[in-house]
Amino acid sequence: MDVVDVIRAKRDGKALTTAQINWFIESYTAGSIADEQASALLMAIVWRGMESGELAEWTAAMLGSGVRLDLSSIEKPTSDKHSTGGVGDKVSLPLAPIVAALGLADPMLSGRGLGHTGGTLDKLGTIPGFEVDLTSEQMVKVLSEVGCVICSAGADLAPADRKLYALRDVTGTVESIPLIASSIMSKKIAEGTSSLVLDVKVGSGAFLPSLDSARELAETMVTLGEAHGVKTSAVLTDMDQPLGRTVGNALEVTESVALLDGKPPAPDLWAVTAALAAEMLHLSGVRGDPRAAVADGTARRKWDEMVRAQGGDPEAALSEAPERQDFLAPSGGIVGRIDALKVGIAAWRLGAGRSRKEDPVSPSAGVVLHKVAGDHVEEGEPILELHAEERSRFAAALEALEGAVDIGPEAPAPRTMIIETIRG
Amino acid sequence: MDVVDVIRAKRDGKALTTAQINWFIESYTAGSIADEQASALLMAIVWRGMESGELAEWTAAMLGSGVRLDLSSIEKPTSDKHSTGGVGDKVSLPLAPIVAALGLADPMLSGRGLGHTGGTLDKLGTIPGFEVDLTSEQMVKVLSEVGCVICSAGADLAPADRKLYALRDVTGTVESIPLIASSIMSKKIAEGTSSLVLDVKVGSGAFLPSLDSARELAETMVTLGEAHGVKTSAVLTDMDQPLGRTVGNALEVTESVALLDGKPPAPDLWAVTAALAAEMLHLSGVRGDPRAAVADGTARRKWDEMVRAQGGDPEAALSEAPERQDFLAPSGGIVGRIDALKVGIAAWRLGAGRSRKEDPVSPSAGVVLHKVAGDHVEEGEPILELHAEERSRFAAALEALEGAVDIGPEAPAPRTMIIETIRG
Repeated sequence: MDVVDVIRAKRDGKALTTAQINWFIESYTAGSIADEQASALLMAIVWRGMESGELAEWTAAMLGSGVRLDLSSIEKPTSDKHSTGGVGDKVSLPLAPIVAALGLADPMLSGRGLGHTGGTLDKLGTIPGFEVDLTSEQMVKVLSEVGCVICSAGADLAPADRKLYALRDVTGTVESIPLIASSIMSKKIAEGTSSLVLDVKVGSGAFLPSLDSARELAETMVTLGEAHGVKTSAVLTDMDQPLGRTVGNALEVTESVALLDGKPPAPDLWAVTAALAAEMLHLSGVRGDPRAAVADGTARRKWDEMVRAQGGDPEAALSEAPERQDFLAPSGGIVGRIDALKVGIAAWRLGAGRSRKEDPVSPSAGVVLHKVAGDHVEEGEPILELHAEERSRFAAALEALEGAVDIGPEAPAPRTMIIETIRG
Repeated sequence: MDVVDVIRAKRDGKALTTAQINWFIESYTAGSIADEQASALLMAIVWRGMESGELAEWTAAMLGSGVRLDLSSIEKPTSDKHSTGGVGDKVSLPLAPIVAALGLADPMLSGRGLGHTGGTLDKLGTIPGFEVDLTSEQMVKVLSEVGCVICSAGADLAPADRKLYALRDVTGTVESIPLIASSIMSKKIAEGTSSLVLDVKVGSGAFLPSLDSARELAETMVTLGEAHGVKTSAVLTDMDQPLGRTVGNALEVTESVALLDGKPPAPDLWAVTAALAAEMLHLSGVRGDPRAAVADGTARRKWDEMVRAQGGDPEAALSEAPERQDFLAPSGGIVGRIDALKVGIAAWRLGAGRSRKEDPVSPSAGVVLHKVAGDHVEEGEPILELHAEERSRFAAALEALEGAVDIGPEAPAPRTMIIETIRG
């Protein structure tokens, strides 16, 4: 088989054959197809898309490039959640212990952040001692003993995706529904979970801001999951404004633990967390009330167990930023929309995010939202508080925040956090 | 500047800015942009195309990546021809000495063949002693003394094109009108010629078979040439059937020398050669009759001078293939269309062409056309004669020829060799 023929077929709008797909994924993973050939094919896929059968084969080939974890030793129903990523999206942190407290086992393989969206592993990494890189054996042990585990995916899970994702990142070929869907689903199917809930974000802070694109991605992923025997739902949720009251690594851990401690959580954060927990329970055929798991302290205990099982100290103080800067209301009134993308970029520039996967992130940098949509504010009152390790970060962050906060005379319409649920 | 931003801009359908284009071409030529990023951009260009101003900038940047030859020391009007390539297209060989005999100076920088189309340098390379790789000084010296020279382009002419062309070849990004036009024109403008005639082929053996695509390419190139001060015309010519009576390296040299010797040439070959010569004379403002240059022997003498000036022996016997195989008429009748692409692929498989630019070619392999469209043929009479160095080549070549020759009861319509002329 000739790789140029494969590239030309896709370039000319043809569906790739099963033989072409399997050969390409296998050869590229093995290193016998050059990066410049793979990136040309990826751009042709961005251009031409993939038919549904073709995408199923492509995903199967990516999955087949590595192992699929065997979670048959876990006695509870396994269920996981994946988010397409957002600003202040710390839902994974409280969610895993909540569903574990309600009888599920959540084998949550997560990633690090890139660009304006944060990464779950970066957040957990701010907990002293917490180990995010576990072997498959260690992961299954924590899952079995605690009921939840949050760690990185091993190199033996979908290695084709690892290589293709790194290539897409530097070649402008990230934004493609079939490529995004196959990347997410090959990893999540490889993880071995029996059911999966996809949190597909919609709005300015989302990877695919428009509702139509988000819906198409959601439907594509649900179809792929079901085709591989994973019960899959997608919940489209609002990411037009930051989720909760904090954006930043340690800041988001603190907000998550406060939620698990029963302190009144931000309503938007709770709405998304509860909806995703309910969907995971539904897919698993298990009854349970997320509110009760928080109220009776079982969810918080699961969190502590998980943190300890992964080497961390749940009582340890987290890193706090030495430098602070308020973002003040330019006028009095009622806070309207706070733009998720602008806040995400500000947090990134403060040090909470990275531009390249090798870059370090600051544990303490980020943004605290003192006011959110619907709050009254006086002229000159702080709306946001910026946290950073160096004062030199503030200027670029404040620049990103220009026009980020609407203030007007009237209360904005209440946000609809759960836009739509798509079931397989 | 960030290359991913440049790729994404083109991917999203935007025109690249002058700054982006100059930075990309310069950085890629210098090696600071990776091949996988360049190939993604190339595929995005195949997809989105280029606006005319953008393409002019792109071509100027490719031209500016190297030197532009200074032919001001040549006292005659300089004029050249470029062909988009075809099957049996040996026109360059007789054309350069014909126009030199009529008072022009033709600085013909040529290439080697790839795929089913032959390359002028491969053909000349079959002449014992003939040197196709000259320095710029040697080239100008031959041009000045003889009035024509046919050699390879030096590494200092449009080096960006050299690198991009090699990349396009292995990444399925060859077939794009702006990329083809900028590649051809950056080299031809760098060559320093005052006028240029483009032979844009149309039909099955052409690179872009359809008339619409050929016309678009022709118009694009004429505009680019004129913008750089080169008087440029394009002649659309028929490449639906092989040109002349031979396809193959030494075979085509022999046919070209016979034409220059005044032996009755194949009418199609003569029609194209004469039309291109006339257009070169027209652009140069020089009167002259190509027939006279052949009839009085001056064109043949120019050929001999050029061959000797480039180290070759015009009297030396050329390589002849030891193995022959006839392709017989399956029925009697009148020969209709002979498919150029099929004959080109057969010649390639016989050894006359190459798949990769590193591959060697056979000097003697090829196809001789005993019959062409309009000829009567008896059942079992040879129509084509295949030449190869090994008999093992014949099976695959004969397979390529399946359905290549139409035979019917009626004479086909006469071919129109010169389809259209586009002037700047």
